[in-house]
Formats: sequence, structure tokens, C-alpha cells
Amino acid sequence: MDDRVREHARTLVDWGARVEAGDEVVMSVSEGAHDLAVAVAAEVGERGATLLSTYDSDEVTRAYLTAHDADFAEPGHELAMFEAADVYLRLGGGRNTAARADVPPERTQAAAKAGEAVREARYDTRWMSTVHPTRSLAQQAGLSYEAYADFVYDAVLRDWEALAEEMARMKALLDGGSEVRLVTEGTDLTMSIDGRTAVNSAASVVYDSHNLPSGEVFTAPYATEGEVSFDVPMTIRGRRVRDVRLTFEDGAVVDHGAAAGEDVIGEILETDAGARRLGELGIGMNRGIDRATDAILFDEKMAGTVHLALGRAYDACLPAGESGNESAVHTDLITDLRDGGRLEVDGEVVLRDGVFRWEEGFEEGEER
Amino acid sequence: MDDRVREHARTLVDWGARVEAGDEVVMSVSEGAHDLAVAVAAEVGERGATLLSTYDSDEVTRAYLTAHDADFAEPGHELAMFEAADVYLRLGGGRNTAARADVPPERTQAAAKAGEAVREARYDTRWMSTVHPTRSLAQQAGLSYEAYADFVYDAVLRDWEALAEEMARMKALLDGGSEVRLVTEGTDLTMSIDGRTAVNSAASVVYDSHNLPSGEVFTAPYATEGEVSFDVPMTIRGRRVRDVRLTFEDGAVVDHGAAAGEDVIGEILETDAGARRLGELGIGMNRGIDRATDAILFDEKMAGTVHLALGRAYDACLPAGESGNESAVHTDLITDLRDGGRLEVDGEVVLRDGVFRWEEGFEEGEER
Repeated sequence: MDDRVREHARTLVDWGARVEAGDEVVMSVSEGAHDLAVAVAAEVGERGATLLSTYDSDEVTRAYLTAHDADFAEPGHELAMFEAADVYLRLGGGRNTAARADVPPERTQAAAKAGEAVREARYDTRWMSTVHPTRSLAQQAGLSYEAYADFVYDAVLRDWEALAEEMARMKALLDGGSEVRLVTEGTDLTMSIDGRTAVNSAASVVYDSHNLPSGEVFTAPYATEGEVSFDVPMTIRGRRVRDVRLTFEDGAVVDHGAAAGEDVIGEILETDAGARRLGELGIGMNRGIDRATDAILFDEKMAGTVHLALGRAYDACLPAGESGNESAVHTDLITDLRDGGRLEVDGEVVLRDGVFRWEEGFEEGEER
Repeated sequence: MDDRVREHARTLVDWGARVEAGDEVVMSVSEGAHDLAVAVAAEVGERGATLLSTYDSDEVTRAYLTAHDADFAEPGHELAMFEAADVYLRLGGGRNTAARADVPPERTQAAAKAGEAVREARYDTRWMSTVHPTRSLAQQAGLSYEAYADFVYDAVLRDWEALAEEMARMKALLDGGSEVRLVTEGTDLTMSIDGRTAVNSAASVVYDSHNLPSGEVFTAPYATEGEVSFDVPMTIRGRRVRDVRLTFEDGAVVDHGAAAGEDVIGEILETDAGARRLGELGIGMNRGIDRATDAILFDEKMAGTVHLALGRAYDACLPAGESGNESAVHTDLITDLRDGGRLEVDGEVVLRDGVFRWEEGFEEGEER
């Protein structure tokens, strides 16, 4: 077994979920994640926790959803399992990203609705979600399998403690700031972050961060004004989207365009009132992620990029008891600042040309 | 997908477990059983039951057991899951029958002990165990994959209703009889079955039969006298066993021998007092199974063979409240009557030369 698989497992179990003796662990294994499952099982066993493996197969799910009359019931056995569990480890990595392409979305939504209590019980555990490199995901990224595996492990096997410290600096800047300005080609956007709290997403339950890899700092902006252009291409709802442009007035999108996928963006904006406002400003800080692979879990963490999400805001960023932007959608769009551009907090540049202000190579400039 | 996979799934779900709307189903998927899992998921979905898939990987289990300090705790999440479940479907079919060969038996036993309540909760469901043909199992059987798949589906895809009716005739003969005699080369054995009840094992929970394939009628004999020779070779505790000979006096083995594996038989006989007495007399009646494949789940159901088990008797065969032969072991040994031999109940021949008395080709003879 590739040593990196073992190290991945150790990172997930120790840094991520903080598994300890006596924990009741549910491990969800995707079709292509067997090798990681074996490594995680060894880590869980070594810590003296119990282990129950579930099988998360897209093909099994497709068969079940397709054959059902769509009047789904709450799965009581699954609910009981998660209510008794302390830790949930999701090992993604399928064999075909299109395996569920022919399941009508209404059907998937109806099943999700019946599983609401299950989902809540799952989120009440110390849960972590990660991904094992598979050929299917390599194909989605347009990479050979070897190159994709290297990419995944570069992203996952970080010095998370050091990165958490670095991200804490960014969090402090955002927590203390009131206005953010994003400037790059086709972009001059200002947002208020006054009173909002940033999350240091360091791939561990103790940071309230549940993805491995992670490596971003995010907050919930409002009162957005100006223009923004997103140059990282991605697939949204199965359709290619490229060079999205949005114009904001009084916090809401008043105009939009795109070189590809303009209709998808239009659809999203029409969802509800909240879909025209931002729910998230995120700053990618994971230096292990150096290229876009058309997988939002990775792309949005890319160091030197900034992402904005249309729609729902995370409660963790809001003053206690206050609700932020509400929407049925949360769609991330990414701007790459590595080829030129800057992010300012209250007039101070914190990121320029992909370099953070505390990093070597950061250059002070004359701002316009 | 092979149509036989779908038919296998339908047989398991409908005839076997009698799944209906509202049932909470746990489906356990072995490493090589993915295709059957997809087919079973469709059947479960069509019936409007809920579905939770667990992953039963020998390699995951090996990694967990090996890394653990062996002071195992009860898996509370698994217990909660089975307590809430109505149906448990085990889809066997691994990728390596030796995958757990280097796990010390004490470790496996310690884990099994911690899982006692889980096992009881599982047996309290409408449970069924079956097997998907894999290359690993084909190899164990000494068959090509294609030939092995044909073999499995011949055994599984029976007219179970017709077979259950045929087996009911055998059950009636045994229930009404008081003495059984088995005669073949090297064998002349008599057993009492007076007061005992036979089980019609027709691969369905409504027959209290939990294996697919099944196809045997069995009871709990006692007061065994005489000699018996078992000519179907098998692997017991990882060792080859061939041509076992046992001599019974007053119901207990007083002498034993074997052409191969005599030491294993000796070990088993030394386990406890009950290991020297019979716990089961079974009659294989599945005409789909026409050859031994070194897998007891199949071999003991082979039509025209008789098996006897040293050790524990099943409660279902005993008068209510009475306990039969008790032992920590239950080891089946098989005699093939197809090349000559007979089974008598109270002097009446019910099986001769592999043919049952109600079948075409059955010949009355002059018995000695």
C-alpha cells in the first residue's frame, strides 16, 4: 500500500476527527475508496474505537431511487445508527461521476427530504469528509491517475498545524476589518464584513472544519457593490461555466453574463431573493492545491484564489442569534489572483498576485 | 447485467426475506458482491422498504482486528441499527478466501464475544444469507468463473415452492418415524429420531430457513449405533479432510479414522462431551447442486447426499423446552448415496442410490 494512503488515514483520524478510545465510528466507503478504508480501519482499531462500515455506492443508490415509487420513508435504522455514533468518516471516491446522471432530481430531493433527521444526526457527530483518488476523479480533472494521486496527496498531506496558524492571521485581519475590496481584471468589488466572524477552516472538527483537504478562511459579506469576474472554469449542474461576470448594486446582482453557461447562472439567480446576494467570501490558502480540477472541494481551497458564493450564508460567520443571507442555493464562483490582482481589508492589501502579505515575495504597491 | 443476478435478487427479497413496504432493510455487501447489491437495491426500492448498505470487507476487518489491542467494546451504533431493522440481507462473495488467514483466532473470537448482542439483534430480524459468485469462490471450488456462476445460479434459482412441497414429504416421513438407518459402503448406522421434529429448510424466513441456496431437511438424532464413512472431501479449519470413519456406541464416537485430516477430526472430538455425539442428520435435496465445491453452504444441500454433524443440535428439532446435544462445535460431514446406498426410516427405504422414493427411477429392493 502507498504510504501516502496510510498518512491520509492518520491525518483524517487524528488531526481531522480526533478519534479516541471508546468512540463509536461510522465509516462510509465509496465504490473506489476500498484502499483508504483499509488504512482508516487500522487507525480506528489502533485507537480502540468501534467501527461500522457503510457502503456508499452511486450505483446502489441509483438502483434504489429509480425503482422506488418516490414516496420515501425515514430510514429509522440509519437514524438509530447515527444517533448512537460519535464520529462519521466519509471516504469519497467513486468509479463514475455520472453514475447518477439519469436519476430525476426530484427523486433525489424527495429521498433527501425523508432523510433530514438522519442528516442532522450525522452532522451532530464529529464528522469529516475526504476523498480517495480514483480513476474516475482523475478523468474529471483531466489528469492521469498518477498525476491526480500526487495532486490529492499534496492537498491532503499538509502541515495542518502550521497552516492553521497562518490562516489564523487571515482570520484576525477579517475579524478586525469592516470593508473588503477585490480588484483584478474586470473586477472592482467592495463588500462589508463589519460584525461578521471568519472561520479558520483547517480540516479538523476542532476548527468546525469538516473537509479534508480544507485550507480556506471564509466569512459572510453583505452590502456588495461593483463588478466581479470569475476566471476559474467549473461544472455547475452538469454544465460548463466560464468567465462569469456579475454586477452588484445595494448588495444584489443586477446584471450578469458569462462566456459559457450564462443560462445556468441565470437559473441560479432566479431561485429566490437570497440567490442574488452573497453568502460567502472565501480565501483559498492551501499551497498544495496549485491548479483547478473541476472539483469545488479542491478548487476553492487553491492558495491565491478568492471565491464568492451566491446564496446561503453559514451561521458560524454571523453574530449569535442573527440570521444571514438565506437561500436554497449556495453556488461558489472563483477568481484567480495569481496572475495579477489584490484583496484589501480596510485599504490594506492582504493578498497580491497570489502572495499573502506575510509571505516572502509579497510586494507593496501603489494602489489606485 | 446478467438476468440471473436480477432473478437471484428477486428470490432473496421475495421468497427469502419477504420484504414489504415499510420494512427497514440492512444489506451487507461483501467486497465482490457489488453487482448483486445493485440488483437487490432495486428490488428493495420497488417494494417501498428503506435501505441501509453496510460494507463487509475481509480486508477492512483484518486491518481493524490486527491494529486493535483486542480489548473490544460492544459496537453500540451497530446494535442500535440492528435493533431498528426488520430485515438483514447478507450478500457474501469475497475476493480472497484467505484474506483473514493471518488474524489470530483468539482475536476474532474476542471481537465476536463483544458483538454478541449485535448478533442476537441481527438474528431477531428476518435475516437471509446468500452468496454472489466471485472469482475467489470459483477458485476455491476448482472451477472456471463461468462454470462456477452456472453452478451457483443452478443452486439458487430453483422452483422453491415445488421444492418446499417435496421437502415436506421428507419432513412428514421423519416426523412420523422413530428410527433411521443409513447403509452404504463402510456404513451401517442406526439413529433414533423419536420425538424429534424435522426442519423443511426451503430458503425462506417463513420456513425458519436463512440460507439461499438451501434445500435440505434436517433433524436431531440420538442413540446412534454403528459405523459410518464420509466420502465427500472438504476443508475443515483450513485442513483437507477425506474419508472420515466414525464408530458409535451408545450414541457416542468410540473410534475414528480418516484418509486425510485425522488430526482435525481428533481435535474436534476432544472439544467437549457433546462433540462425540450427533447434533444433526440432514438430507440434501437441492437438485441444482450436483457436485461438491468445498463450501459447506452448498455441499450439504446436494441432492442424494446425507450429512451428519458432530456437536450442537438445533432447538427447532427438539420438543419445546428440551435441550438437545450441546457442544461448542457443529461440524458437518457428508456421505454421498448417489453411487449406491440407502436411507431407511423404520425399515422403509426413503432414498436409494441418490433417488427419493417418490421420484421416477426409484427402485424397490430386497434389503439385508
